[in-house]
Amino acid sequence: MTIARTSIFCLALAGLATAAVAANHSDKAAMAAVEARKAQMKLIAYHTGILGAIAKGETEYDSETARNAAMNLHAAAGLARGTMWIEGTEQGAVGDSRAKAEIWSDPDGFAEKFTALETASGEMIDAAAADLDSLRAGMGSVGQACKSCHDTYRGPEN
Amino acid sequence: MTIARTSIFCLALAGLATAAVAANHSDKAAMAAVEARKAQMKLIAYHTGILGAIAKGETEYDSETARNAAMNLHAAAGLARGTMWIEGTEQGAVGDSRAKAEIWSDPDGFAEKFTALETASGEMIDAAAADLDSLRAGMGSVGQACKSCHDTYRGPEN
Repeated sequence: MTIARTSIFCLALAGLATAAVAANHSDKAAMAAVEARKAQMKLIAYHTGILGAIAKGETEYDSETARNAAMNLHAAAGLARGTMWIEGTEQGAVGDSRAKAEIWSDPDGFAEKFTALETASGEMIDAAAADLDSLRAGMGSVGQACKSCHDTYRGPEN
Repeated sequence: MTIARTSIFCLALAGLATAAVAANHSDKAAMAAVEARKAQMKLIAYHTGILGAIAKGETEYDSETARNAAMNLHAAAGLARGTMWIEGTEQGAVGDSRAKAEIWSDPDGFAEKFTALETASGEMIDAAAADLDSLRAGMGSVGQACKSCHDTYRGPEN
């Protein structure tokens, strides 16, 4: 009886330990996914910033730089989301994530927002390479795509 | 004479102020470029880590996840370098950069290293999608590309 009880206790303990290890493993993966998304957003913001500074006349227009910035913005926007936007990484669940739960409850809506940025940044590649006026004309839809997604799927500052 | 001296003093002061603003502006741009590169490296490391965990059997093989990871690795490796690897951002010159000055004194050598990662990660896309053995077979050249570039062009920890 004592042995049986001890065994049950040990099994329960082992179960808890396994759960803790699994949770820890999963937390690490969730944290890493959030960090990867932040890197994606950093690259999007950085290259949008380069284009924005050119559009505002703060930086001199240079066709090659502008085209490279648009290509990188497009590449960052077009990253496959499955590896980074994983379930259980919404705001409140892990680290300083600001991703709203709606990203996972409304995947089509979220995909639509990202597609808008992919389209706008794709069109920006030729526009940015062409001349300053074309670059300026393309900034609106890039900025709108950023804002529209943030308004809907980004939570408040932590 | 006093007016002339004051004017010269004022001109000198204005010159210093302009230089300071320019330096500040340029420092900010240099810091932002280093942060963007770190984001690029983060995305490369994150997706290599996903593939590595699958290769080691720590994560179950899944064709779609593996392919997405390889695609994102390839996209991050293939970003246009002109916007981020800008002159004056070598180790010691700005923030916690670990980029060796040789990146700019030997651009062809540096490009060759990055091209090796682009090639290895490009080949990994189909390999990762195919099956676990193919993924495992492709890990060597990905890891070798990372190591080879770091050995030559990354400075010691700060």
